[in-house]
Parts: sequence; structure tokens; C-alpha cells
Amino acid sequence: MSYTLEQMKAIFTPRSVAVVGAPRTFKPGLVFLQALLDPGFKGDVFPINPSADQILGLKAYPSVGAIPMPVDLAIALVSVDQIFDVIEDCARKGVKAVIVFTSGFGETGNSAGPERERKMLAVARAGNVRLVGPNCMGIYCPESGLAFFPSMPAIEGPVGFVSQSGSLSAFVALMGSLRGMSFSKVVSIGNECDLSSNDFIEYLGADEKTTIIAAYLEGTRDGKELLRALRRASLKKPVVIWKTGRTSTGACAVASHTGSLAGSDDVWDSVFRQSGAIRAQTLEEMIDIATAFYYIPKTTGRRLAIISGPGGPAVAAADAIEHNGLVMAPLSEKTIARLRRIVPPSGASLRNPVDLGVAPWAMISIYSDTLRVVDADESVDAAVLIGGGLTPSTQQEYLESMLELKPSLKKPCMLISLAGFTGDIEFCKKLQSAGYPLFSSPERAIGAYAKVAQYYEWRKRMESGD
Amino acid sequence: MSYTLEQMKAIFTPRSVAVVGAPRTFKPGLVFLQALLDPGFKGDVFPINPSADQILGLKAYPSVGAIPMPVDLAIALVSVDQIFDVIEDCARKGVKAVIVFTSGFGETGNSAGPERERKMLAVARAGNVRLVGPNCMGIYCPESGLAFFPSMPAIEGPVGFVSQSGSLSAFVALMGSLRGMSFSKVVSIGNECDLSSNDFIEYLGADEKTTIIAAYLEGTRDGKELLRALRRASLKKPVVIWKTGRTSTGACAVASHTGSLAGSDDVWDSVFRQSGAIRAQTLEEMIDIATAFYYIPKTTGRRLAIISGPGGPAVAAADAIEHNGLVMAPLSEKTIARLRRIVPPSGASLRNPVDLGVAPWAMISIYSDTLRVVDADESVDAAVLIGGGLTPSTQQEYLESMLELKPSLKKPCMLISLAGFTGDIEFCKKLQSAGYPLFSSPERAIGAYAKVAQYYEWRKRMESGD
Repeated sequence: MSYTLEQMKAIFTPRSVAVVGAPRTFKPGLVFLQALLDPGFKGDVFPINPSADQILGLKAYPSVGAIPMPVDLAIALVSVDQIFDVIEDCARKGVKAVIVFTSGFGETGNSAGPERERKMLAVARAGNVRLVGPNCMGIYCPESGLAFFPSMPAIEGPVGFVSQSGSLSAFVALMGSLRGMSFSKVVSIGNECDLSSNDFIEYLGADEKTTIIAAYLEGTRDGKELLRALRRASLKKPVVIWKTGRTSTGACAVASHTGSLAGSDDVWDSVFRQSGAIRAQTLEEMIDIATAFYYIPKTTGRRLAIISGPGGPAVAAADAIEHNGLVMAPLSEKTIARLRRIVPPSGASLRNPVDLGVAPWAMISIYSDTLRVVDADESVDAAVLIGGGLTPSTQQEYLESMLELKPSLKKPCMLISLAGFTGDIEFCKKLQSAGYPLFSSPERAIGAYAKVAQYYEWRKRMESGD
Repeated sequence: MSYTLEQMKAIFTPRSVAVVGAPRTFKPGLVFLQALLDPGFKGDVFPINPSADQILGLKAYPSVGAIPMPVDLAIALVSVDQIFDVIEDCARKGVKAVIVFTSGFGETGNSAGPERERKMLAVARAGNVRLVGPNCMGIYCPESGLAFFPSMPAIEGPVGFVSQSGSLSAFVALMGSLRGMSFSKVVSIGNECDLSSNDFIEYLGADEKTTIIAAYLEGTRDGKELLRALRRASLKKPVVIWKTGRTSTGACAVASHTGSLAGSDDVWDSVFRQSGAIRAQTLEEMIDIATAFYYIPKTTGRRLAIISGPGGPAVAAADAIEHNGLVMAPLSEKTIARLRRIVPPSGASLRNPVDLGVAPWAMISIYSDTLRVVDADESVDAAVLIGGGLTPSTQQEYLESMLELKPSLKKPCMLISLAGFTGDIEFCKKLQSAGYPLFSSPERAIGAYAKVAQYYEWRKRMESGD
């Protein structure tokens, strides 16, 4: 059953939330209630617990029906034998959606699980209540203040994430934040007995606050509808999917995790090809690709320039450029002549890769000076810079020269934070805030860049009707 | 020309070093002299500069010949037109080896470069002097105190590294140190006009202080000899090679970096297969594989148990186990019954992967309790634990419980430091010092583990003559 915008609004930006089964003392459930208080859900929060008057300083109610105000959304932390009553209670109250954290359904592997899911769905349908889950972890939406954990980042951003793995959603939010990204809406969808990954991908595809969609999938219940949702969303914005359960061993793990069928990996590949969605091979790659889309505007082409201190990673970068179907930008004679005035001759090669050798050890600003010249070359679409200071003082100089340069750059530049170069979190944050994406290897940066280039070429073909 | 042990001793553990062309003021060259003072070369250091009396507080000499004591090794920082005289000066003094940092040889791409290399080698041969380089960055050997940079780690360890990329050697030392590894001998070999990667791989193969060899190669001048050296070394200890210049774009970059020929990638694959050496696809993978060999004893088998908080990475781990030809350890009924007493039922699956769901959020010690039980199962050869605290206080509890458990564990356990879990360097160091290897994803841990299992199986076959 398709969703309405009003239902999605109740799920992501409700005016009020009831937390049903909020425990009085420390249990995992209490974390979810605390998550609504820090940094803070913007509407009303009503803990429901028949044997408590107050929880975490909030007035507690014996049932949802006992709340004297309207309630948009309920979060159910109750056990599997109580969930039916809770949904009926919510239906009577006019609650629009229930996020069912409760487990013990399709993922249990015994036949009672799916039966329970069907029964729960019937109760919800009868009461006009939509369900997220069961066996899920809810919503993170900085706009409304819904969160998985206390002290999650409060800043809104353009990345939407849909996940069939609960706590993975929280890790992705943290990993994204370390890469300088902020999120619009993150949803842990659990067993998807009602609202599905397809629904949420479709919704994020239309959501104006979301410009990049990422998703973790283990399986789907409706491949045809998934293909349609992916294609519709991909025509508007990049959709990056990490799909596991690729091997039979992985498929078994999927069955006991969310109870889904993983499906043939070839079929999945064809879904990606047909829909324009982007397949990430690993969690790290999904984050890398999202990072590239986050920082790189869509107008870029395939010609990359490599600037490097160490020679080995520069060669690996050249390999990665060919391997990913990109092009080594042919630097003009004028550029090479300008570089010759900046870079001392010892051990350095001024073709592309621009191999600076040990020159930056004497003068760290050679990195930013080289980047300035390379950026101005008309045959360069984007640059990859492998470098940085080797001591705290040269690292600081590197940082300052790169920050000073950024506003005048015309092209994106991906920075490679080889360990020992740029491991410091504050240092990375400053570069990212200025608009430089950071990657841990040139191969990862270039692989992610290739997905960006391919995606915008595909969209152009689609838009021109070729 | 093969090396003698006396020559290698002069290169790695000389009693005295002359630094020829040490500049008086700050230039890259001065860094190399400072590197010998901090943390400190154990023998005598003689800066050579005809226009200085003292450099960095050391008495300077106008030539190597003017030094009143014997000199084992010289480091030449001079320009290409001076290098011939320096080598002759060293030969007259009886210096056994010269490390030629000087560039402007085969890597320049013009015909004069190789010709200069031949001439330099002839001068060295005539004077019975061995050369490392040219276009190299020297030696890091904590035993003697030789180092690339000031304040490199002073601790000796079992990893030897041979590199055709100069500053990469320093990054590998730093990256290794972040993974808790220490080094025996690291050598930047440059253009290899005399002593070659083959010589150093053979030497490290026989070196008792080295039990793991890693190498970065772009090409070789003698494939047959490389195969022989790799095989001889691999029969004694693991040899992990990162080879770049795999594509034609990469091969061009190699030509301007070290002047080598990259060679056909298929031929390289066959060298790896025939020799028993282990091929790493990326720099990160080389470090991962070395890390696995560093922490995991050779007696381990192919059966892995996965313990995870988040479900998605657990499924990815199961995929990686099949993909790498490993086996999901079938946990015994006894183990599962013991786990049932530890892990609350909500959302958790106690098969392998042991999916703990949100249970650790209420009690973080569930990780170590689960590991204790899984470790005791006879069908488990090693474990992968994907978990950790999500707040500073639970992270501290996680750390303490894992450190307390370690001495009683019978099998290796690889920890996955998903960002947000275990990003703190001090935290990682403590776990690594206790003997836990850390990896940034289950795929990387399992891929590296597979190389360890394969290597020891190969060695067993070789030793039994099959």
C-alpha cells in the first residue's frame, strides 16, 4: 500500500511522539527515549509506562489513549506479545504511524514469525496506522530532532539513508559525519512488514531536502517495484546502494538477520544497470561515493590531475584512473613551464602525475602552489592531491595554505589523508568544512569520482532522451 | 653482483656514517641529518661540507677522506655532477657502501640518465663500494638508529620493508606503527643501479630479526632472480608485495618515477603464484595483510566465527568468508546454549554470525562474554568481533573487559574499528598492545586472514614435499 505525504510527515517530522514501553531504569529502550531529549526533539514527548509517573523528568502515561493531546507518531519498545494491543491503542488515539522496535517476527526463522507480522499488519490496516519495522531502530531526522542515540549531530544536511540494518544506520550517520556530511533523513526499516525500502527510496527521491540517497539492502520483497523506485529516484539524484547477502553464506546470515531473501546477485546487478542506481561493493565504498557526490558538483568531466609527494601512491593513482575508465589530464606546456618555476628539479616529474618528490619537505606550500597552477589548466576537470605535513608545524602550514587557496579554485580537489599525514580529526574537519573531500587512498578517491562522472553522464543521456 | 653480509651490515647497522652534502641551513637534506640525531643513531655521525665547521652541533669535515676515524657508510645528498667524486672519495676512505639520495638518473626519461648510472656504478665497483639508490631515501633501522625522519619510532620489531618509492617507506612505517607494528629494517631502494629489490628481499629472507617481509615494487630488472629470491624468502617467512604499474597509464607513471619497466601484470601474477609470495592489491591491503601476519600465529585454520553488534557488517562478513574461501565455524549446541544465558533474546541470532543486536547497548560486556564462549568452541579457529562502545564511558568499559579477557583467549580475535566505535588512537593502541589486531572493516580483516591461512597451508605443502 502506497504512503501519503501526511504519513511520511508523521514519521519524520511529527509534532508529538509517544514512546510506548519506555523503561524506568537503564535498559536499551531508555537510550531511545534519551535520544529524543539530547540534542532534543522539537515536539512533545510522552513516555508510556503503566507503572511510572515520570521517566527522565517527563510525565508518563499508562496508555497512548490517556494522553490528553494529539499524537502523530508512536515508538513501540514493547515485547512481541504486547505489540498488538499497543497498535490498537494507537489506532483509537488517531496515531498515524508506529515505529515497531519489537523483534521476534520474520527474522526468527520459525513459521510463527511471518504469521505474527501478517497479524500485526492487519491490526494496523484496520486502524489506519502505518508501520515502520518491526525489528528496526527508528528514525534520525535532524530537522525534527528524532534520533537513534543521545548526542547525534543536530545539523541538517542533504544525505538520506535507508537501512535494513538497525544499528548500521547509526554508524553510517557517524561515519558520514567524520567525512563532513550531514543528513536529511535516516530510517532503519527492519523487516518492512508495511512501509518498505521501496517506499522510502521513492519518498527520499521526491524529498526536496535530500539530494543524495544511500541505502543498505539485504533483499527486497518486490524487485519490480524496487527497480521502478530506484529509477524514478536516480533520474533526480544519485542513489548509492550497498547490497550484501551476495554469497550463499551471506544469504544465510541475511535470513537470520532480517528474514529477507537475498536473491541472485546477477539479478541485482541488472537492477542497478537498468535503474541508474550506483552499486557500492562495501560499506566504506558507499561512504566514499556519497562523500564524492557531497563535495563534487555535477559539471565535472573525466580528466584528472594527480599531485603527489610519495611516488608509489601516485603510480597507484594512475593505475586507478585507467582501471576506472577515467583520463590522465594532459597538462599543457604552459602549466608545465609554470610548475617548473615552483618545484625544484630534484627527483620530481612535472608531467601528470605531478610527482613533487621530497620538495614539500623544505617548503610545504609547494602543494598548494602546484594545485593552484594545475587547477587553472583547461584540460583538468578535477585534481587528486596526495600530500600534507609530516610534523605538526608543517601540517599546520599545509592546512593554512590549502584553506587560503580553496576560494579561488575552479575545480574540485580530492585530498588523500594517508595515515601519518592527516590523521587528526580537527585537521580533517577544517579541510572538509572548506569544501575539500578527504579519502584514505587515491584508489578510493578515484573510484568514487568515477561513479560521480558516470552518474552525471547517464543522467545527461536520459535527459536528452538518447 | 651479490652482496656480502659485511656489506649489508654496513648499510643497516654501520658503526659510523658520513652525511655528504649536509646543508648548513634548512633544506630537505638537513632533515636526513636530523633524522640521525632524533631519536639517535648509535654510532658516529660526520657531516661533510667544505664550507662549514659545524652542522647541528656536529663537527663537519671538508671530505670523507678528512675524517680521522673509519667510516662504514656514507649518505650522499649531493647533486648529480658531484656524486662521482664523492664515491671516489668514499672508495679511498674504505667506506663499504654509499646511499645515493641524488636524483637525475634513469628516472629523468632522457638517455643521459641511464648512462650516468652505469658510469657511477663503474666508479663504485672500481673502489669496492656498494650503492643503494640513486634517487632513494635511505634506511630506517631502529636497531642502529638509522631513520628517514626525525622522531621515527625507536622500537625494533619483526617487519622488514623494501620500497621502490622513497617517501612511501616513511608512510608505511607510520601506517604500520598505527597498527601496532614495529620494524626491523626498511630500505628505500630508488633506481637500484647496484643493490636491487632482489638482493634486499633475499637478505631479509635470511635475516633473523625479520619474520614478515613487505615490499612495494613498480618493476624489476631481473624477473628470474626476483622469482628465485621471493621463493627462497617465502619458504621461511611471509612476503607481501604491493605491485603497481598494472595498467598502461600506471606503467607510464612508473617510467617517470623510478625509470623501471612495469612489465605485464599476468607475468607478475604468475611470479606470485610460483613463488608463494602474497600479492596485495592496494597499499591498505598490504598493511592489512602484514597486520594479520603480525598478530596471528601460524597454527590457525579456516573456520571463523563472527560476533557483531550491527547486522549489516555481520552479513558482509559472511559474504567475505565465502568470497575468500574460508568457512563459517559451525558453533556447537553447547556453545549456543551457553550464549543463550549471556545474550538477551531481543533481535539477536545466536548462530554464526552471532548477531547481538542492541543487547550490548545495555551491557557492553556482552561482547567479551560472547567472545569468551565462542573462543572455547573447538570448531572455531579465529573470531572477528564487530563492536565497541558508542559513548566514552561504554568504550572504556569495552576496552577494560577486552583487555581482561585477552590472556585467557586461545584463538586470535580480529577487532573491527568501525568509525565512531573505536576511532581514538590511544584506545586502539591499548587493544593492539594486548595482542588484538584492528581492522577498519570485516571484509578487510577476513581478506587478510585468508592470506595468512593460505600461506601457512602452502608452506606446509612445500615442507611436506607435496
